[in-house]
Amino acid sequence: MYEGLKGFTDFYPAELAPRRAVIDGIEATARSYGFRETATPALEPAEMWTDKSGEDIVDELYDFEDRGGRHVTLTPELTPTVARMVVAEQQALSKPIKWFSTRPFWRYEQVQQGRFRELHQTNADIFGSGEPDADAEVLAFAADALVNLGLDGSAFEFRVSHRDILGELLRSFDADVDVPAAIRAVDKRARTEEAEYLDLLREAGLSDGQAREFDEVLLAGDEDLDELTAFADSPALADAVENLQAVLAAAADFGVREHCDVSLTTARGLDYYTGVVFECFDASGEVSRSVFGGGRYDHLIEEFGGQPTPAVGVGIGVMNSTLPLLLQVHDAWPGEGVETDYYVLQVGDTRSTAARIARELRERGHVVETDVSDRSFGSQLSYADSIDAETVVVAGERDLENGEVTVKDMASGDETTAPVEAFPGDFERPTCDDFA
Amino acid sequence: MYEGLKGFTDFYPAELAPRRAVIDGIEATARSYGFRETATPALEPAEMWTDKSGEDIVDELYDFEDRGGRHVTLTPELTPTVARMVVAEQQALSKPIKWFSTRPFWRYEQVQQGRFRELHQTNADIFGSGEPDADAEVLAFAADALVNLGLDGSAFEFRVSHRDILGELLRSFDADVDVPAAIRAVDKRARTEEAEYLDLLREAGLSDGQAREFDEVLLAGDEDLDELTAFADSPALADAVENLQAVLAAAADFGVREHCDVSLTTARGLDYYTGVVFECFDASGEVSRSVFGGGRYDHLIEEFGGQPTPAVGVGIGVMNSTLPLLLQVHDAWPGEGVETDYYVLQVGDTRSTAARIARELRERGHVVETDVSDRSFGSQLSYADSIDAETVVVAGERDLENGEVTVKDMASGDETTAPVEAFPGDFERPTCDDFA
Repeated sequence: MYEGLKGFTDFYPAELAPRRAVIDGIEATARSYGFRETATPALEPAEMWTDKSGEDIVDELYDFEDRGGRHVTLTPELTPTVARMVVAEQQALSKPIKWFSTRPFWRYEQVQQGRFRELHQTNADIFGSGEPDADAEVLAFAADALVNLGLDGSAFEFRVSHRDILGELLRSFDADVDVPAAIRAVDKRARTEEAEYLDLLREAGLSDGQAREFDEVLLAGDEDLDELTAFADSPALADAVENLQAVLAAAADFGVREHCDVSLTTARGLDYYTGVVFECFDASGEVSRSVFGGGRYDHLIEEFGGQPTPAVGVGIGVMNSTLPLLLQVHDAWPGEGVETDYYVLQVGDTRSTAARIARELRERGHVVETDVSDRSFGSQLSYADSIDAETVVVAGERDLENGEVTVKDMASGDETTAPVEAFPGDFERPTCDDFA
Repeated sequence: MYEGLKGFTDFYPAELAPRRAVIDGIEATARSYGFRETATPALEPAEMWTDKSGEDIVDELYDFEDRGGRHVTLTPELTPTVARMVVAEQQALSKPIKWFSTRPFWRYEQVQQGRFRELHQTNADIFGSGEPDADAEVLAFAADALVNLGLDGSAFEFRVSHRDILGELLRSFDADVDVPAAIRAVDKRARTEEAEYLDLLREAGLSDGQAREFDEVLLAGDEDLDELTAFADSPALADAVENLQAVLAAAADFGVREHCDVSLTTARGLDYYTGVVFECFDASGEVSRSVFGGGRYDHLIEEFGGQPTPAVGVGIGVMNSTLPLLLQVHDAWPGEGVETDYYVLQVGDTRSTAARIARELRERGHVVETDVSDRSFGSQLSYADSIDAETVVVAGERDLENGEVTVKDMASGDETTAPVEAFPGDFERPTCDDFA
């Protein structure tokens, strides 16, 4: 007997059904915004991550040497792959490029509650617009996706931050600070002890006092943005604050400002982010971990060898992520289990009639099973029950001699007979009641 | 500038759109038969293949040692994974178990025309029925899936064979013949030179004369099945012939007998198959390669440590497989390209109105884009054309002062004005004509 690998999940039908409904819902929202679906390789040259992505993700790569001696890796996230694709077809693609896809990624993490080595995301990205409208459209898509899944608008909040605000604040303390390292420290703030977090800031080049003062500034909220500009005499800081305010203004026009709170302690873990970054949280606080996040990464396409191309995106964890918890807490989780419209039961040698009925019901778009195991009446009925069949159509040898089938409603137990040649006849979704 | 790996494909939206339509169609047919969706890991313990699957596939594994020292592999096919899942939940699952899924697999093959290292399949399997009805239902699902994609029933044929007929015929020549090796030779028959093929049969233990005679017997067709029984005094051979005939009889009841031709030169490459096996081909012969295949594998669950559980399934290659070629040859390939219902064009500071209109159109389920790049009228109109927008709604500063928007049909060029507060109003899908 074999066992699957730790950190990898087998999704059986009953558990997959609600997850599929959630993915379908998010993808429908993405399509409505004009995001277009792409499909991308699971395996890529490892240097696409080892060159640019920051040490945290590189430590978790599933990388290896393939049979041709290439250093390859299972992709831990989508962004470098779509960046590569944009560069490859930069001239042919009309801008803005708006892409989405849902697929697994792989990270060799410590397996623990809520952390898996195979994780699934729906990513949506806009390439080719540096305008605040593009950041805001990503926020609007994400908020609409959640609302379309049945969440009340008050159930979630987007904590919005800005990489350049963090970077300029850090540089205002010390021009030589290691900004990427300090930002990685901020990203870990909520998950580590305070002493360890302050240590990480000191390792990045801040003094003890600077680290504490910096951390205090991070508590600025929506109403403190203008003051923030005064914190340092830095045009770059003023620009960043203005950009964040412009994104929030666009979010207001797009109807999603209410979901956004300024939160400078939000940083995101990957090095390539440049402007606005955000994370989605449960507003009730019941789910404490971040649900998903995204942000702007304006330099990646150029670093990958393309024309300068601003970009902004979001990656929504699906399947085994925090999102199912958020939906469960707020009563928006679709039911688990499988659904069946009809089971066509065979008694005696009635296969050709049962098959004809099953075929005609399937042509109407219904989920229909019939016996493929040569089983008894009782055994078939019990199976029909186990798959939650709504209606059972009994094709019995004796009934058929009278030109009839029996139609049984499984919820009420009601049953009636129907002329076999009139079943399903003109009915789109025939039930027991139609023939009673 | 990075390049993706050889044998891996980047699917841009225009090329993915028809493939997504094909996958959606196949999955809808699978659901109508009561196959239930599962989702499964990309990575598994390598011994799940090295123990059982035959040397051909083992030579092509993307296997490596993970950071924990485990010998793991990217999965080259689905069957061992679903077998493992059936074993793990054998008691809890009601039989028959009918599962489907669509996902990528990986094989380190020589990259050539039509052969990729990342390939996608929709697999559908039935566990727990050894009856001919189950084999026939898999054939019926596959045929219905193709017809539902728009193929004429005469466009494809299923070449149906039986592993036990092949095995018993081989043993009738020589009890010590290496049956798995000889069957792998038959599987390669159409792809190799005759001399090389006969060599493979001789390596498996047949004499030169036996190899030629065996090959002649393989040319038996539908009408020769009864004679085949007389070829050797073997009850097992007679049983196998009878089983194949029973599957064909069930296929007749299921309405798909017309697609099935007996073809004993069809063998399938994997060692675990036991009974009926089949491959789908282009009936016109224009596409020469097999489109997809499947078959019965009654021992795998037991070999994986479970209760004896018969099984039968099919794996339909999608995305970059032979199937798109078959559909193209028979004019059933969905159009490439992207579709857009509305583009909401902004002229001047009209973002909040444009956003409101876009939001209301999206709520009606339409694909709607609006400007996120702060571009000129002409640049927006050209972009709307590039994404094939059906209708452009112009929210212009001057028009809005008069309480109007302009509605433009992009195919005819016709345009008219509409009151802004009545757009989209009560219209489900407002067009230029509605306001003309």
